[in-house]
Amino acid sequence: MTTSPDVLDAADPLASFRDRFVIDDDLVAYLDGNSLGRLPRATLDRLAAFVREEWGGRLIRGWAESWVELPVTVGDELGAALLGAAPGQTVVADSTSVCIYKLLHAAAGLRPGRDEIVIDATNFPTDRYLVDSVAAARGMTVRWLDPELVENVTVATLDGIVGERTAVVVLSHVDYRSGTLLDLPGLTEAVHAAGALVIWDLCHSAGVVPIELDAVGADFAVGCTYKYVNAGPGAPAYVYVAERHLAEARQPIAGWWSAADLFAMGDTYEASPTIRRMLSGTPSIAGILAVQEGVRMIAEAGVPAIRAKSEALTAYAVELLDAAGLEIVTPRDPALRGSHVTVRHPDARGVTERLVERGVVPDFREPDLIRLGLSPLTTSYAELAAATRILVEVTAPIG
Amino acid sequence: MTTSPDVLDAADPLASFRDRFVIDDDLVAYLDGNSLGRLPRATLDRLAAFVREEWGGRLIRGWAESWVELPVTVGDELGAALLGAAPGQTVVADSTSVCIYKLLHAAAGLRPGRDEIVIDATNFPTDRYLVDSVAAARGMTVRWLDPELVENVTVATLDGIVGERTAVVVLSHVDYRSGTLLDLPGLTEAVHAAGALVIWDLCHSAGVVPIELDAVGADFAVGCTYKYVNAGPGAPAYVYVAERHLAEARQPIAGWWSAADLFAMGDTYEASPTIRRMLSGTPSIAGILAVQEGVRMIAEAGVPAIRAKSEALTAYAVELLDAAGLEIVTPRDPALRGSHVTVRHPDARGVTERLVERGVVPDFREPDLIRLGLSPLTTSYAELAAATRILVEVTAPIG
Repeated sequence: MTTSPDVLDAADPLASFRDRFVIDDDLVAYLDGNSLGRLPRATLDRLAAFVREEWGGRLIRGWAESWVELPVTVGDELGAALLGAAPGQTVVADSTSVCIYKLLHAAAGLRPGRDEIVIDATNFPTDRYLVDSVAAARGMTVRWLDPELVENVTVATLDGIVGERTAVVVLSHVDYRSGTLLDLPGLTEAVHAAGALVIWDLCHSAGVVPIELDAVGADFAVGCTYKYVNAGPGAPAYVYVAERHLAEARQPIAGWWSAADLFAMGDTYEASPTIRRMLSGTPSIAGILAVQEGVRMIAEAGVPAIRAKSEALTAYAVELLDAAGLEIVTPRDPALRGSHVTVRHPDARGVTERLVERGVVPDFREPDLIRLGLSPLTTSYAELAAATRILVEVTAPIG
Repeated sequence: MTTSPDVLDAADPLASFRDRFVIDDDLVAYLDGNSLGRLPRATLDRLAAFVREEWGGRLIRGWAESWVELPVTVGDELGAALLGAAPGQTVVADSTSVCIYKLLHAAAGLRPGRDEIVIDATNFPTDRYLVDSVAAARGMTVRWLDPELVENVTVATLDGIVGERTAVVVLSHVDYRSGTLLDLPGLTEAVHAAGALVIWDLCHSAGVVPIELDAVGADFAVGCTYKYVNAGPGAPAYVYVAERHLAEARQPIAGWWSAADLFAMGDTYEASPTIRRMLSGTPSIAGILAVQEGVRMIAEAGVPAIRAKSEALTAYAVELLDAAGLEIVTPRDPALRGSHVTVRHPDARGVTERLVERGVVPDFREPDLIRLGLSPLTTSYAELAAATRILVEVTAPIG
């Protein structure tokens, strides 16, 4: 006998946040906030005001008045609220892919005597593709970690692979398919013990999992803002570079926004001594403002409270899915998972289509996975229970 | 005796376009549409509807319903209306800096036996910085063209510099300082005669100067959309790759959006056979929609009509500035200039500040230049005349 979702919703200290999002769609349940987060009402208003009053009204003066500093000021806000990062180490910029590319070059450049980049074979495609591309360009070799989909990459997984030839290791904090949460502090320490550097992809963890990059001595991190930060489709990414690496970390897309003096426009390039050196071209101001609104809501709720609800939501999902006899590939220990729960089904694509027809939006992932993303600021227990009920119906054997 | 601006405005066939922009600021004259264009009313409405209804209402379904194709469909619209480009060669992506970086690598990769990149020393900083960075990464040498600021880069300028070692030449169609318009067809032909490729930076020309990339056999082009395309601060850039180069043009930021199948997420990377190979990460959908609105307005007005007004505006500016005895560094032949007119003044910074105080917004450029950007869809002759009157007052000797 499972708990009533209404009881859980009534006891949810974050329940009121749901009212601060635009939720008037035709859906029974939206379980894809880990792909594209919902729209905060504050962002709706902020973007309208920005377009009308700042772009339309201040025009070019907006750059000097505030926009030019936004990549760093919003980066600092994001770093403080989501990453455990002191100011001056985080900047909002470009897309996740472009940022990973920059960090790979920057990190490899800090380990010139080493010729290997290590990544796990289940990492998100863009991470793997970019590792291949950067390794080829720099004459380096890619070494693959090969955990099974549902397994954890642990310190033991690195044995015999991460060593004195390793320059950089690229890891995703939460696996985009299984939802597995890696041991960020332990793995960082293990990579450092081998004299290598680590780039953490935080796309599926930042905003829902406590992260303390400064405290664990992380090197580099990157993440997107359109998932749990709720900043909209194609919102900009962010980059973290630990202060101790800042002076020497050089990225190759050395556009004017990365220069020491943006408007000097001098004959020679000098990289900014600050985190601005990770920028390249003119950033989307509307995009950064949407990030700021999303970050502020997370800061207000607090990541610990969000994490607590996330663990409760994923536990509730596991309970409901178990009761229905569905196969779960996500770790059963809440400490080992992020904020989505993934079901394996031989007809995952068909099941996803039938769910969408019934007003439940999950995410299909090749070849046989259905992700149920649980975004604590917007997902209600009632929504999750309704979705699971329909999932059971559409997966039931016919007849 | 100069013509009355009211007579010119009354006879302007594009005059009505001005009413389709948000113009209720406190300014006497906005002469910086070549840095940040004004806000079209249609864009204000489009963005509000997109945020509210598409992001807020369709959520993740928006990607499959329309967003995923937008970089190419809006690229095609932009290519047709602004660049003289047949479909399949233009894509909206990233920032200008990131796009230049990709094109430099793609172009250099097509000329493997050649080890020099040529650029003029007066080119926009980001172009120069990126040429330096890419040349260093590829073990290539940078060769500089050194035209005086007010001079044209002509075919003769290339003599003795562009030759059998040249892989790529990077040129700005309109100089960001002087406003000089280069001979795009002639220079393209001259670079090709040397067996090299050319990347055209169209930031200060696309949308105000007729461009026929396909007809002239251009190789690559890049541009921003926040100037004459009026797509807002930090709006995305675009890339053009001639169809004949598409199969072999490889850019290094090989993110998932550049892959042959975006959602296959397979083990190995295969570049898209289409112009999508120039993409990297998830693009800003709001940004692309703003580009689409700006492009459609230009398509409706037509670049020839815009160019005609641009020539008339710059001629009127020259007439007024000459009458006031101010020094103009922009070419006096309308065929040799884009859509801004630049004044040299020993106290250009102070003059710019006094202009802004009086409600006239131009652009200061180090060390002694004041740019007057004339954006034909929004700039009126009355606005230009008022600005010039105030410019004369604030530059008049005291006493």
